[in-house]
Amino acid sequence: MYMKKFSDRQQRLWFRLLFEWRGSVIPAILPKILFCGMFSIIIIVIDISGYNLSLPLESGIVPSLVLGLLLVFRTNTAYDRFWEGRKAWGTLINTVRNLARTIWVSIEEHKPEDRNEKTATLRLLVAFAIATKLHLRSEPVNEELVPFMPYGCYENLKNMNNPPLEVAFWIGDYLQRQNDKGSLNAYQLTSMFKLLDSLVDVLGICERILKTPIPLAYNIHLKQLILLYCCTLPFQLVDQFRWLTPLLVCLISFTVFGIEEIGIEIENPFGDDPNDLPLDQICQTMKRNIEDLITLAPCVRRWKDEHPEDYPSDP
Amino acid sequence: MYMKKFSDRQQRLWFRLLFEWRGSVIPAILPKILFCGMFSIIIIVIDISGYNLSLPLESGIVPSLVLGLLLVFRTNTAYDRFWEGRKAWGTLINTVRNLARTIWVSIEEHKPEDRNEKTATLRLLVAFAIATKLHLRSEPVNEELVPFMPYGCYENLKNMNNPPLEVAFWIGDYLQRQNDKGSLNAYQLTSMFKLLDSLVDVLGICERILKTPIPLAYNIHLKQLILLYCCTLPFQLVDQFRWLTPLLVCLISFTVFGIEEIGIEIENPFGDDPNDLPLDQICQTMKRNIEDLITLAPCVRRWKDEHPEDYPSDP
Amino acid sequence: MYMKKFSDRQQRLWFRLLFEWRGSVIPAILPKILFCGMFSIIIIVIDISGYNLSLPLESGIVPSLVLGLLLVFRTNTAYDRFWEGRKAWGTLINTVRNLARTIWVSIEEHKPEDRNEKTATLRLLVAFAIATKLHLRSEPVNEELVPFMPYGCYENLKNMNNPPLEVAFWIGDYLQRQNDKGSLNAYQLTSMFKLLDSLVDVLGICERILKTPIPLAYNIHLKQLILLYCCTLPFQLVDQFRWLTPLLVCLISFTVFGIEEIGIEIENPFGDDPNDLPLDQICQTMKRNIEDLITLAPCVRRWKDEHPEDYPSDP
Amino acid sequence: MYMKKFSDRQQRLWFRLLFEWRGSVIPAILPKILFCGMFSIIIIVIDISGYNLSLPLESGIVPSLVLGLLLVFRTNTAYDRFWEGRKAWGTLINTVRNLARTIWVSIEEHKPEDRNEKTATLRLLVAFAIATKLHLRSEPVNEELVPFMPYGCYENLKNMNNPPLEVAFWIGDYLQRQNDKGSLNAYQLTSMFKLLDSLVDVLGICERILKTPIPLAYNIHLKQLILLYCCTLPFQLVDQFRWLTPLLVCLISFTVFGIEEIGIEIENPFGDDPNDLPLDQICQTMKRNIEDLITLAPCVRRWKDEHPEDYPSDP
Amino acid sequence: MYMKKFSDRQQRLWFRLLFEWRGSVIPAILPKILFCGMFSIIIIVIDISGYNLSLPLESGIVPSLVLGLLLVFRTNTAYDRFWEGRKAWGTLINTVRNLARTIWVSIEEHKPEDRNEKTATLRLLVAFAIATKLHLRSEPVNEELVPFMPYGCYENLKNMNNPPLEVAFWIGDYLQRQNDKGSLNAYQLTSMFKLLDSLVDVLGICERILKTPIPLAYNIHLKQLILLYCCTLPFQLVDQFRWLTPLLVCLISFTVFGIEEIGIEIENPFGDDPNDLPLDQICQTMKRNIEDLITLAPCVRRWKDEHPEDYPSDP
Repeated sequence: MYMKKFSDRQQRLWFRLLFEWRGSVIPAILPKILFCGMFSIIIIVIDISGYNLSLPLESGIVPSLVLGLLLVFRTNTAYDRFWEGRKAWGTLINTVRNLARTIWVSIEEHKPEDRNEKTATLRLLVAFAIATKLHLRSEPVNEELVPFMPYGCYENLKNMNNPPLEVAFWIGDYLQRQNDKGSLNAYQLTSMFKLLDSLVDVLGICERILKTPIPLAYNIHLKQLILLYCCTLPFQLVDQFRWLTPLLVCLISFTVFGIEEIGIEIENPFGDDPNDLPLDQICQTMKRNIEDLITLAPCVRRWKDEHPEDYPSDP
Repeated sequence: MYMKKFSDRQQRLWFRLLFEWRGSVIPAILPKILFCGMFSIIIIVIDISGYNLSLPLESGIVPSLVLGLLLVFRTNTAYDRFWEGRKAWGTLINTVRNLARTIWVSIEEHKPEDRNEKTATLRLLVAFAIATKLHLRSEPVNEELVPFMPYGCYENLKNMNNPPLEVAFWIGDYLQRQNDKGSLNAYQLTSMFKLLDSLVDVLGICERILKTPIPLAYNIHLKQLILLYCCTLPFQLVDQFRWLTPLLVCLISFTVFGIEEIGIEIENPFGDDPNDLPLDQICQTMKRNIEDLITLAPCVRRWKDEHPEDYPSDP
Repeated sequence: MYMKKFSDRQQRLWFRLLFEWRGSVIPAILPKILFCGMFSIIIIVIDISGYNLSLPLESGIVPSLVLGLLLVFRTNTAYDRFWEGRKAWGTLINTVRNLARTIWVSIEEHKPEDRNEKTATLRLLVAFAIATKLHLRSEPVNEELVPFMPYGCYENLKNMNNPPLEVAFWIGDYLQRQNDKGSLNAYQLTSMFKLLDSLVDVLGICERILKTPIPLAYNIHLKQLILLYCCTLPFQLVDQFRWLTPLLVCLISFTVFGIEEIGIEIENPFGDDPNDLPLDQICQTMKRNIEDLITLAPCVRRWKDEHPEDYPSDP
Repeated sequence: MYMKKFSDRQQRLWFRLLFEWRGSVIPAILPKILFCGMFSIIIIVIDISGYNLSLPLESGIVPSLVLGLLLVFRTNTAYDRFWEGRKAWGTLINTVRNLARTIWVSIEEHKPEDRNEKTATLRLLVAFAIATKLHLRSEPVNEELVPFMPYGCYENLKNMNNPPLEVAFWIGDYLQRQNDKGSLNAYQLTSMFKLLDSLVDVLGICERILKTPIPLAYNIHLKQLILLYCCTLPFQLVDQFRWLTPLLVCLISFTVFGIEEIGIEIENPFGDDPNDLPLDQICQTMKRNIEDLITLAPCVRRWKDEHPEDYPSDP
Repeated sequence: MYMKKFSDRQQRLWFRLLFEWRGSVIPAILPKILFCGMFSIIIIVIDISGYNLSLPLESGIVPSLVLGLLLVFRTNTAYDRFWEGRKAWGTLINTVRNLARTIWVSIEEHKPEDRNEKTATLRLLVAFAIATKLHLRSEPVNEELVPFMPYGCYENLKNMNNPPLEVAFWIGDYLQRQNDKGSLNAYQLTSMFKLLDSLVDVLGICERILKTPIPLAYNIHLKQLILLYCCTLPFQLVDQFRWLTPLLVCLISFTVFGIEEIGIEIENPFGDDPNDLPLDQICQTMKRNIEDLITLAPCVRRWKDEHPEDYPSDP
């Protein structure tokens, strides 16, 4: 019973994924596969016309190892970038949460405006994340940012080379002013600055991933080897398989081009393809966490100021 | 003798594991294996009927390398997630222990209520871990949390998007109040906040593991290659092995589907399968450590206040 | 000449290792190898009796890759644990040295008892390491700990679930008291607490390695594949090698079982096998370093207090 | 439609890369490939003259594995260096940004000269990066540095062994003086010193990558194996392929020498080949960020001093 | 032209390395290779005498994979140690530079002796590095250390178990005294202590690498498999290659023994072989950096005290 139920759900998912088109690499590699198929048909035709093109070449183990190694390398490198990008955004979420909580809890409020300024700064944290997203996608500052900052700042931001850096500057400036005003002591300021530094580090990490592709020489060598491999395939198969050759060439080139294509797709994970990181969703999560935090505060104040006996009464 | 005794115990364990059903992937992959077996029977029947389907295809070394590579990649990626999840929970335990000890030792008590509040905060640390567990399993806040927080807080928690964040907020708020009251100096507050940040980081790491599966394109390509491989197998074997073919196809597809299935099973390690992390047990350990710490205190106080000469008398 | 001398020493070592019995995995895997040998003898006998069991199965490249992959994975995972465990103990040594030096140098002494208490705390650091060792080996608190703590504490420790945590608590308590007495300023206290946190982190890391084996599913699948492989071997070899088959089966199964066994042996590196970490020796080193530090102090005091001109006179 | 448009752009890029000359390793390995081709022609001629040189050596799987393994190892090691170098420069950017922002925000200005001195220090941060670049390329201090420091300092720098270290010293000295003058409190000074330490760490990491090549023994062994492999190739192919042999030898040696050459090219990523890191561009980015920051300040001052109500007015 | 010039230089280097004797593993493995060659001659002689020893054993893919895997594992593990050792020494350089600069900049001088004491402490940092080097090479404290410390200290050092720890103690003691005298505030003291802790961590990391070889069981199993492989080789080749067998056996065993030997050579990178880390050179670099720093100071003082207008005058 257990087995049955378990398998059913999973089996269906398994097969649905198999024929998934969106997110698959097939659209991208189909032309190359067809090219290899065409090429092998030409070879067959010539071979049949009497010009013997068959080549009993058993592809040597070392060249195959080299191709395999380069494919492994390509795949791992691309995935490492993807995952490092994801980790950076994970750090962004964590740091925003931690910095927001510390600001909310630690900065003293002396008059109602202080509260407003605090709320505005919390929103600036979300603005930092959104500005980073736009910056990584090379999109200009747009109205997505408007709800998270004063309008004057928004106008200002449009003229900057690197908008997230300006947002970080505003947050740093706000914190320093709280210290100057005496609402925040120097130790906590220092540790908040460290969290702010983490935010800027995340920005730098993402820029690094974006701007440093796999070294050119690898890319060229890999493409050359793949083409070499796919073009020698029909010569090796034509004698034995005749008209099955194009089918086999297509299947084999599908496996090889597919793995290379995946590398290309996930290497830069900051776009908005189905294979990219869900940055919009991550920004939404951050926004929701900040809004939650803002609603949370009054409850705590009440709990602290009005019913101080409430807390320790329970075990 | 040494060899004998040693081997006996281990040998038995070795064989018991071999036939372990629970935790094994066999239930999950049996349907796929049977499907491959059926398919090969059909191929044999057709082949025997006179339509020659045999294909002397020596599966090329490069497609095999690509499939092998993708399986390796799948396995390593899945295990890395599993292990990163485990590390995160390890950090959670360590941080809870360190934060609890520091709170217990460093916050000054001026009246008995202070002690109660301290105890309550220590329990909130356990509550954070349990809330994280429930959040990762997408379970609602439930009565497992009741013993670790005042009832009002528990009610409050039910309405939050992200309950662990609220618990972290309470702890942060408590610490800040101790600083405002003068029971905790600013340096220690800052370093406790860092530990609290670690707790929230753990939450973020687990959410990241949970919400970012292996890129879709890999998953699709891998499944396509596996199916392709298993479906071309009978054509290659039918000529040589006849009615042994289904058995061989089942055995070979067992090895391949098995390794893929393991990847699927351990990729998300926060559930409660036998292959998942023992989160319940980890939370129990944390609870026990905290309770130990609470009982420990009086002993130390006595040792410190009443018999100060006891300590340095011994070497 | 260089070559000759160099090779001699090394050559001898190389061959001595070859036949090392203790530490080798041969005792553990001999029964399984013999079982495979027996099994292949049975196959030969049946085959000779006229029932043809020979199977011209060329083991497919993909199942071999899968088995190879799982063996690699097993090996790497096991070694990673071993090495992570070693790193954790390395961190333990470093932290004990650093914490000891800081305590020795930074805590002010106002009366001779202060010196005694300091010495006692330094010894508690060694006690922490020994208690961790015992805890990881699931051994009870024993007299190995007696020289490093007051007897009352030792009695207390026997009743704890997690003795190292109690030792850490004592150290933390001692440091906090020095701060309360004014012998240690708050910044140094905070940074000592961080070192203490590192000690507890090491404990947590070791517990994690100990309690989280490789996921069950991998273990089961690996064992199943190994057995499958070794049991199909005689069918493939019997036709060609006849009575040499058992020898070959034994040799081949020796390589495979051996590598699996090593994984099992070093996976949990905290025992006291020849393949485990030399924890006893590490604890000894720590003890020696601490004792050195204690003897060192008077020299420095003299140098500092009585001959302050001694130091800057030399270049 | 989607597929069509998508493929077109990518297809063209794919093929353009294929024939890219600059950045490719072909110029570097062509002589070696030609040498192997020549050698195989000699072998053919001798073989045809009646001296049978054909060697039906099926290259054993283990030597191939060893060669493959060494190539993998070479590739991964070289790429790790490349990527570690890139990470170090990423850290440099992040740290310069963070340190610049903190200096700009936190150091109090009492008179206009203070502002000038601040600006000069911000430029010294860029000077540090440029000096590091020159130092890594073994180039002398040149006029690229002039705009970023007082001329006297520039003269001074010319006589140093390690110019970046002197720049770091100046920055440290400036910060300490601000603390002595009371414009910067001790906690912030300490945390700025940590950022400065990071800068010097980056310098050290780059020097380490530059000065520690892959161990000599690996390099020698790899070259020997490659040559051995390429020189035994014609003996294996001559019988079967006759005059096609040189072509095949060239193709196969192309794959092997190519992968080795890439390792050599990216191992030291601090030069100015197309396969090296874009250090000039990174320094430009840093400069632009600093100049942005300097222009930014007045805006913020205005916003802070003159319109303090501007900020909290918006949500 | 570009290609020509480029290749020439590199080509020559490439071939020079090929025949490099010093640093190569050939001296170390020659005896083993000769042994295998001899063994295969014996096999041929016996085989020719009429006792058929030929064994058409196609070395199974799985045992080859296992051997290959163990060689990969050996290589990676050894290189990881080498590289971790190099990283540790890189950290040592960085930390010495940072600590030296901070001491030089931050500790206040009230009288000329303070300057001397500062210089002496800076030299102690170099002494720490040299003492670590000697300790790792198991050499006694020698006159290399004399110029870097007062003679009394040097005498003292000779009697210690772990000399670097004593040097670290002196530095820590010096820093604490500066704090007691009021020349250094507590925050900076704490952060300098962290740098000092890093120095001791480096010592611990190097000791760990030195004292924890690869687990015994791997080493034994690997050696057994290599010997097994090399001894079954002649049986497989004798039939086909006759008197070429010894040559082939030598070539193949050369690749395998070579890779194992490299692992042995670089596993402990702290010796003074050509394949070890250039520790002497690293210590020299450190010394030069420290001497540079000391000469640097007066210049800065002048610049700061006498021409304070010099600095901000330039952009």
